[in-house]
Amino acid sequence: MPPLHRTLPALRRIRLANTRFQTCSRLQTCRSPVYSIAQQSRWQATAAHEAQPTADEGDASKDTPVKEIRYTSESYPQVQRDSRFKELSSDDVKAFRDILGNASSAMVDGLSEDASDDIEGYNADWMKKYRGHARLVLKPSSTEQVSKILKYCNDNSIAVNPQGGNTGLVGGSVPVFDEVIINLSRMSQIRSFDDVSGTLVVDAGVILESADSYLAERGYIFPLDLGAKGSCQIGGNVATNAGGLRLLRYGSLHGNVLGLEAVLPDGTIMDDLTMLRKNNTGYDLKQLFIGGEGTIGIVTGVSIICPQRSPAVNVAYFGLESYEKCQQAFREAKKQLSEILSAFEMMDGNSQLLYSRASGAKLPLESEYPFYCLVETSGSNTDHDSEKLNTFLEHVMGEEIVSDGVVAENETQLQSLWACREGVSEASQHFGGVYKYDLSIPLQELYGIVAECRQRMEEQGLMGEGEDKPVVDVVGYGHMGDSNLHLNVACRRYDKAVEKALEPWVYEWVKERKGSISAEHGLGLAKKEFIGYSRSENMIKLMKQVKDLYDPKGIMNPYKYL
Amino acid sequence: MPPLHRTLPALRRIRLANTRFQTCSRLQTCRSPVYSIAQQSRWQATAAHEAQPTADEGDASKDTPVKEIRYTSESYPQVQRDSRFKELSSDDVKAFRDILGNASSAMVDGLSEDASDDIEGYNADWMKKYRGHARLVLKPSSTEQVSKILKYCNDNSIAVNPQGGNTGLVGGSVPVFDEVIINLSRMSQIRSFDDVSGTLVVDAGVILESADSYLAERGYIFPLDLGAKGSCQIGGNVATNAGGLRLLRYGSLHGNVLGLEAVLPDGTIMDDLTMLRKNNTGYDLKQLFIGGEGTIGIVTGVSIICPQRSPAVNVAYFGLESYEKCQQAFREAKKQLSEILSAFEMMDGNSQLLYSRASGAKLPLESEYPFYCLVETSGSNTDHDSEKLNTFLEHVMGEEIVSDGVVAENETQLQSLWACREGVSEASQHFGGVYKYDLSIPLQELYGIVAECRQRMEEQGLMGEGEDKPVVDVVGYGHMGDSNLHLNVACRRYDKAVEKALEPWVYEWVKERKGSISAEHGLGLAKKEFIGYSRSENMIKLMKQVKDLYDPKGIMNPYKYL
Repeated sequence: MPPLHRTLPALRRIRLANTRFQTCSRLQTCRSPVYSIAQQSRWQATAAHEAQPTADEGDASKDTPVKEIRYTSESYPQVQRDSRFKELSSDDVKAFRDILGNASSAMVDGLSEDASDDIEGYNADWMKKYRGHARLVLKPSSTEQVSKILKYCNDNSIAVNPQGGNTGLVGGSVPVFDEVIINLSRMSQIRSFDDVSGTLVVDAGVILESADSYLAERGYIFPLDLGAKGSCQIGGNVATNAGGLRLLRYGSLHGNVLGLEAVLPDGTIMDDLTMLRKNNTGYDLKQLFIGGEGTIGIVTGVSIICPQRSPAVNVAYFGLESYEKCQQAFREAKKQLSEILSAFEMMDGNSQLLYSRASGAKLPLESEYPFYCLVETSGSNTDHDSEKLNTFLEHVMGEEIVSDGVVAENETQLQSLWACREGVSEASQHFGGVYKYDLSIPLQELYGIVAECRQRMEEQGLMGEGEDKPVVDVVGYGHMGDSNLHLNVACRRYDKAVEKALEPWVYEWVKERKGSISAEHGLGLAKKEFIGYSRSENMIKLMKQVKDLYDPKGIMNPYKYL
Repeated sequence: MPPLHRTLPALRRIRLANTRFQTCSRLQTCRSPVYSIAQQSRWQATAAHEAQPTADEGDASKDTPVKEIRYTSESYPQVQRDSRFKELSSDDVKAFRDILGNASSAMVDGLSEDASDDIEGYNADWMKKYRGHARLVLKPSSTEQVSKILKYCNDNSIAVNPQGGNTGLVGGSVPVFDEVIINLSRMSQIRSFDDVSGTLVVDAGVILESADSYLAERGYIFPLDLGAKGSCQIGGNVATNAGGLRLLRYGSLHGNVLGLEAVLPDGTIMDDLTMLRKNNTGYDLKQLFIGGEGTIGIVTGVSIICPQRSPAVNVAYFGLESYEKCQQAFREAKKQLSEILSAFEMMDGNSQLLYSRASGAKLPLESEYPFYCLVETSGSNTDHDSEKLNTFLEHVMGEEIVSDGVVAENETQLQSLWACREGVSEASQHFGGVYKYDLSIPLQELYGIVAECRQRMEEQGLMGEGEDKPVVDVVGYGHMGDSNLHLNVACRRYDKAVEKALEPWVYEWVKERKGSISAEHGLGLAKKEFIGYSRSENMIKLMKQVKDLYDPKGIMNPYKYL
């Protein structure tokens, strides 16, 4: 497995008053090559903004043909097909054809003919970890078609799997058995944009990056950003309540989504696609569909408030001696950068070494530190923002909160500093595999789990340099500004002993601190069994009540979520 | 009815480059006297941030004793007591006493003794427009007590009326018949605050201003502000999804509330009081209680993310020649003030004349204009903010978008400029009465309804200077930044002909533009019948489904909402 090609960055040191702060130069941007599944050529990244894994051409383990991916039904033998669901017949296909019309793009029909080459890309997720047995993909082009499809499925007890860009991390976007895939990609129109209020209305199938590009031309920005932006769809973002890089600044989709259009299992169209910022007339039902992961209905349209795009963006990267100092730096950043702070990311020293080791990139700072932080500002005035950032940097250096750091001077350097953060996900998978945990933990205790997990692996003799050790390293990084930690256990191979050492230990650790076992990735199939670690029995009971209310036959994205 | 005392402001004109911009000086602050109901001494203002009405000592019409306020059951004869609900007995009082203990502050018992003097303040709203027949007020001091009370009421079909600060505008916070009032004021503890993340956890009964003062001492701000802050409670703010003055900057409660603790009618405690910014583990049920107006449960605890407090605040007030120019100014403010813009309010010329006429205050600008706007910035750096604001002002003056304007130089002037906006509500009621509409309308058409309404009143001969004309003036103002218009028809007396000319015409006008008939005031009793103008039959049906799910016996805040 050859290392990824990178050019070692050379840094130009610039002295600020009383500080050792550097401005980085000639750092090379490190855009990853596109990672493809079957015929699908697109960015395949996480629903949760992490950089997508990349692979060199010759990396066989990552080029596993879809047909060689293990079926989910085999890796989860405890999950059995629900016998209430009807098996598809040619009559069903004919009924769907009547709804969708004869356009070849409207359906992938693996029942009437052998369409396995076309269909497998829809059956498998981008991690090549989950694979279903679907033989039919429907691609409606309108909300009315979605309504007719769901009504037919509900009437006939046919299970369905809603699918957007299929970039999720928890197996929520692909079927387990023979669920009909309802893929929203043909619903890709921007319906309207109001350039005074910033309200954008789109079909669910609009690609996030397309929407953001459309907005950029008009001086606006989509209030959500994530690594998968090139292929994830806004409907899927909403259905999974994607978090991502801009949450610290612009808040969650629960606040930004103004209105939704969604289709319930019985075909009812929930026409709540308001463009109003304020509308206090009744229960805010749309919120149930934000993060509902397609289990109570399919989002077909989204109305969202978009902020002005900031012309000035700065990124700084620095080294710190302890997690306590990371917290101090965050507190100071909030105070001094205040309204222009748009990201505060933390990466531990091991994560940066792993990134450097896997990618061959030299890290931006000359010395090594136990912790690193990346701070981004976005504002309307370049001079003001630079002044604020410099004042902040002088303060944190002067107070010895931060030990060393660099500031990007141009877009290329900015991308390179971000790569040190976003490249960790890729680096974690580089040595063969990775156990990934996406956790919310109160800020004070956020890093504790990484240190303990590392110690645990060492004590159990599972981690080391030798090929006999399954674990390469334990690293922690994430959105410190959102109390969201990514705990990655990079390994040479998947190993039952490692799994046993990790679970349920990780979940118990998080539960004790009242954290969340899934901060932004959702439940899907992967976390379904573990919801009890983050939710009480009462809450789970109330959630099941809602599921039963909207989807009494249980046809929507079955085997997942609750 | 004497005019309110005010000192005429004298303005010091300051020339900016190429502009006629002024800095105001010696504007006098105009804090309104406290308006009291019965024995209750507190700020009595709207749940929706409007300045509370004030009255001179001698203003008899506003000093109507509570016992002279007409019962809601008389003003709404079509609303009949639901016979399913049990009438209270002494056994019920004893049961509640067992739950609450013997503290005299825990109960106002109008069944066992004559407590009418004590109880009437809880029966009537601050507008003195709604009055119920409750004979029992329960004041639990813990979530467990709320749970036991509701379980008892549900088991015995006893209707309840949850009550916070009782500052609402739509009759939602007082009973109609003999519902038991569950008042949250004794649950008033701040439970915790994390000064790194800014997460505040409070009992529902904490007064908004108390929470904000607590936060101010720690450099934080509550992300909601409204005129009633001195008496409204955070639980009530959440239950009514209060909007207010900071929504443009910090977004809605749907985005800021991180967790809720609420009690369902059957006594189930919904323990969703997470302090996590991100938690994607299941349906976000708490959202149903935000804006649920106490109809499916009682909010007992709130966890909310609070932003850093901005040390620099600026306010500018200017005159414009048309509504089109207001929109241009708003667009420029969003672009140039961007991250520091914290309010953009619009007041039409008539609203400012009415304010001046009612209050005796001289307006800040020497000439009269058909429109005025108030712009507020909040940021972390005084110099930067002033520079941004001046650049913006020079631009809008240079481009002749704005005709004239003033900028506050100190806190007193800042308050005085805000008074021109907040004083309109009071001024509208000054001449005897007011028909108030709180509307969301797409920005382009926002002002159209005011012009048409004015014309309508004139054409029907209802408006004029003579005492025989019921209508004094029609004015429009509001949160332009949120597309939220307050349409006020100031009148000398309430008159059936005026009412007939206004309704359902206003609601139809709003419906045609896909607006909302209640942007931030909620439904309560006042708007219950009109929800169909802003929501489709499908949506109302789905909402009723949720109501039936959580409150099958209908005991929660009956006769209101849906």
